[in-house]
Order: sequence, then structure tokens, then C-alpha cells
Amino acid sequence: MSEKQKLKVTLLAGGVGGAKMAEGFASLEDVDLTIIGNVADDEAFHGLWVSPDIDTMTYTLSGRINRQQGWGLADEGTRALETLTSLGEDTWMMLGDRDFGLHIYRTMRRMKGDRPSDIAADVAKAFGVKSKILLPTNDVVQTRVKTEQGWLSFQEYFVKEKCAPAVKALEFAGIEEASATLEALEAIASAELLVIAPSNPLVSIEPILAIKGIREALKKRAVPSIAVSPLIAGKVVKGPADRMMSALGMRADAVGVATRYQGLADILLIDHQDVALSAEILDLSIAPHCSDIMMKDMSDKMRLASEIVDLARAQGQNGAAA
Amino acid sequence: MSEKQKLKVTLLAGGVGGAKMAEGFASLEDVDLTIIGNVADDEAFHGLWVSPDIDTMTYTLSGRINRQQGWGLADEGTRALETLTSLGEDTWMMLGDRDFGLHIYRTMRRMKGDRPSDIAADVAKAFGVKSKILLPTNDVVQTRVKTEQGWLSFQEYFVKEKCAPAVKALEFAGIEEASATLEALEAIASAELLVIAPSNPLVSIEPILAIKGIREALKKRAVPSIAVSPLIAGKVVKGPADRMMSALGMRADAVGVATRYQGLADILLIDHQDVALSAEILDLSIAPHCSDIMMKDMSDKMRLASEIVDLARAQGQNGAAA
Repeated sequence: MSEKQKLKVTLLAGGVGGAKMAEGFASLEDVDLTIIGNVADDEAFHGLWVSPDIDTMTYTLSGRINRQQGWGLADEGTRALETLTSLGEDTWMMLGDRDFGLHIYRTMRRMKGDRPSDIAADVAKAFGVKSKILLPTNDVVQTRVKTEQGWLSFQEYFVKEKCAPAVKALEFAGIEEASATLEALEAIASAELLVIAPSNPLVSIEPILAIKGIREALKKRAVPSIAVSPLIAGKVVKGPADRMMSALGMRADAVGVATRYQGLADILLIDHQDVALSAEILDLSIAPHCSDIMMKDMSDKMRLASEIVDLARAQGQNGAAA
Repeated sequence: MSEKQKLKVTLLAGGVGGAKMAEGFASLEDVDLTIIGNVADDEAFHGLWVSPDIDTMTYTLSGRINRQQGWGLADEGTRALETLTSLGEDTWMMLGDRDFGLHIYRTMRRMKGDRPSDIAADVAKAFGVKSKILLPTNDVVQTRVKTEQGWLSFQEYFVKEKCAPAVKALEFAGIEEASATLEALEAIASAELLVIAPSNPLVSIEPILAIKGIREALKKRAVPSIAVSPLIAGKVVKGPADRMMSALGMRADAVGVATRYQGLADILLIDHQDVALSAEILDLSIAPHCSDIMMKDMSDKMRLASEIVDLARAQGQNGAAA
């Protein structure tokens, strides 16, 4: 492989953590990045279709993200939400004024019958995103969280209830009928490197994998697949992955993550702190690779992305030599 | 009639001029005000249902109107519209962020199947409006303006084209099938004083009157009906009424206004400057009443509203004496 040629990287990713990883790859000049994002935390608010993970990805890669929060746009306002509140609407879902412009646009185009994946691509383009942001499906798939309070939508669990209720089960409503987009299947088939971002394995990555055709396409890969653990020393960087995994009877550590990705990843990047888990991960036929996987700033993101590219190139050469 | 008892005033009114008149009546302690507003300049923007005249009325009577503009809310932002612009949407219709909150709410409730008149009432209540704001119909009626550029929606003509194209014809799409709301008919039937605001006779008042049952209810009145001319010395205070009337072969003065309201108004308030038109107005069986009808500030609005109430009470006494 020529160093001049761009490496086609396809990244499976959820929201904030996935967007950080995407930013790392997008900043590498020798990478041509395609993201397959998560739509299972989409939900209608006030009659508008909101797609939090896809928007976080778009906002991050456009450089317009609110860096303090990690989600939403910089220089946001709350005027539209204030009106909705004064009209008696339940406004626990924080939606900014600039944000609303996008939700209005998305909803209008969906009502017109446009494909959600075309809308997402047009939005990314308008925001100046160079990487491709693909949807795994154009069908509606929605994560439902069974808790001690009953079934909640993902945003109800995550935003309204702040992940407090104990999780008893997860389901992805609509997943049986959902079909993968051709763009997503093609991005997996044509990738030279597949990466699973350090996103929540259960509610960000699983609802991508569970769409008919996607897991199978990943299993059939002829190129390296590298996953990054979202857990460091049994704790998640952000979100409820650790709590959810424990609650559902899984190990809430890098071994638990590796178990989810058996057959789907060749290498799992884990933190130096988790070196003791290496043997157990290897037992799952995934090669552990210790690194500093916490992404605090842009240089961390670039370093981690570079390291993954180097690992893939080394594996490619080993593969060719074998 | 006891001075303690509130006079039931029903006002037919359009946007900015109508809202000024409404504010005058709403400020009188001895008046119980009901407004029948205009929905024929409603239009969908970016998939949201916008109701400019009704909103101007609500914003004005809640005291939250942008006083400099006469429309829109105070302390507004343009972030949502900026997003829509960046997404390639044509954003000539100025919609503020707070405004968008209302349009989102209205659209959501319409999609749910709620009656537009119930939505308008709930919005007015949430905004703290004491007067009743009624819709003349729950059906969609839309003013279309035939110009040298072809047929335009009212907002295209008014906002986008700034009333520049010469008007050749007007039509109200949907008017044949529209039926009046029971609330509007009841507000006319139970009024003790009917007032036609100094709104555009052709595109604000006519699409109210033209809804089946409304003109007839007004004609059958047993109480005084008083109109206020929107034209002073042949010029309109705001909007295209004078140009439209001329273009359509009508006299663009208080006589032209009186012609429109023959059989519907007993008295027409005209400006002192138009005293010379009195005889011609009287020939149309409408009593001209000269006053200072320009409403520059709150005291003007109150004075004019008081004057109308006094005229009505005097007419009522004359009627009782006759």
C-alpha cells in the first residue's frame, strides 16, 4: 500500500465518544473516512424528528460543536424552547435554536418522503463536513429501555431520567423490519479498515450491527477490524455503558466489550490500566492492544487514530506475509 | 345599560392595524373584547404552519410584541433561521426563534388533529391574553394575489416582493368550502357592539366576511356596527390597501372603504382630513364620523376605542328612543 494513497476507513460510531474518534480519523490526511452512525436514539420532540447521534457527529466534524458539552452547537440560544415551555410543552430534551433549524429541516424533508440517509448527507455537506456520514438504515429503529419504571425511550432514560433507573432489558423497536442502506453495506464491503468506535456497545453499536445484513457484512470482511474499548478500568468515559452492562449481567470491562465484538473485531484497543485483562481478551480470539485510549483533546484523537491506522497497516503486511 | 356592566365588543381584525385597535378596546375596563381574526394569510414555511395575523394579535395583546416592528416578539433571535439558510432553505419570511417555538407547537397540534381555533385559544391563554381571539374558520383559506408575475401567496406578495408587483386580482383559495366556526358566529350574534378594525378591507376583512355565514350574520345584526377607515387622505397607514384598491379599480379613500362595508357598518370613522368625503359616505347609508383615527401610541388607541364605545352607546340610546 502506497503511503500516498488514502486508506478507506469505515467507522461504526454512536454519539459523543464516536464523534471524538471520527474527528481523529478525519484529521489524518492519509485517511478517507466514512462513518456509519446510530439512528436508534432518534425520537420525535414537539412533532420534530431529532437524531441526536447523527447530529453530534455532524456538529463535531464541522467544528461547530459546543466543546464544553460535547453535544449541541456553539453559540446556541434557548428562545424556541422557552416558547414551547410557556405553551405547556414538556421540554426536558435540551434543543437549541440553531438545533431547531436542523430539526425543522429534517422533519420537513422526511414529510416530503426524502430518504433519511439523503437528508443526513445533505446536512453534513451543508455543514461543510468532508467525511461521509451514512445511516445504517432508512427505517425507524428505536432503542427502548426497560427499567424499574417501565419501558422508556432512550432519550427518556438518558436525558430525562439521567440514566438513574436500573436497566432490566433493552430492545430495538422496528429492528426486525429494518433493512440496511446500500451505502452502509457498500462502505463495509469497500473499506480497507473497519473501526468500531469507543461508543456504547449496547445502545450505540448494537443497533447498527443488529440491522439485517450489517453484522454479516462485518463478519465476512477481508480487511482488519479494530475496536476501541469505551471502558477504562471498568468505568465508562461518558454515558451509562458500564452500568447497563452490569445490570444486564455482562462484565463491565474490556473483556465484556470484547465478548460483544467476538467475530467482528480482530484487535481491541484497551487502556494500559487494563493490561491484566489481555489474556482473557485473547481467549475470545481478539488481539488486545494496550494504549492510552482516553481522548481528552485533539492531539489524543489524532494519536489514537494514527495508532489504529498503523496497527491495521502492520496487520495487513503480516497478513500479506502469512 | 349600566355603566358597571361590560360592553360585549366583537372586533373583526387583521394584523398590525387590527391589533392596535384591539389593544385600545382591551385596555378599556368596561369592555369585554372578542376578536375574530384573519387566517387567510396563513402559510406553511419549512413545513411549519405560520399564522401571521393571529400571532400579531396574540403578541400585541400579551404585551410581548416587538414595538419597533409592530410584529414579531421582543427579544427575538435568528439562530433557527440561520441554520435553515445554511441548509439551503429560502428564508425570506422572517421567523424568530421564539416565534418558531409557537409555529412548532401549532404544527404539532394541527398534525394531531386539534382544531385550529382551540390551538389559537390555548396559545392566547398561555401568552396571558385576556381577550378572546377567535378564528373565523377552522378550514384552510388562503389569499392568492394575481400580479404581473403570476399568482403569489399573500406572504410572497407582501413580504418577499414587498408589495411591488401590480395587483390584477385576488382570490381566497378554499373559501367556497370553508365554514365559519360556531364561536365566531356566536361572537357576532351575542355582541353588543360590532367593530371592523382599520385593517386592509380586501385581504384582512374580506376573507373573514367571505366565509359562509359571517357576512350574513353581520347583516342581520341588531346592534351598532362601527368601522374604522384604514385610509387617511387616500393613503394607508401601513400595508398595501391603497395600492390594491386602486389597482382593482376601487376608490382608494374612505369612500372606497365605505363601499366595501355597505350594509355591514352603520358608522365609519374617518380622519378629520377626510371630512370632505362625508356626503358621499352618507349616500352609501353609512354615517361618517370624523375623528383623529391615527393610532400612534397607547393613548391614541384608548381614546379611539373609547370614542367608538361612546358612539355605540349614543346610537343605542337613540335607537331605544326612536
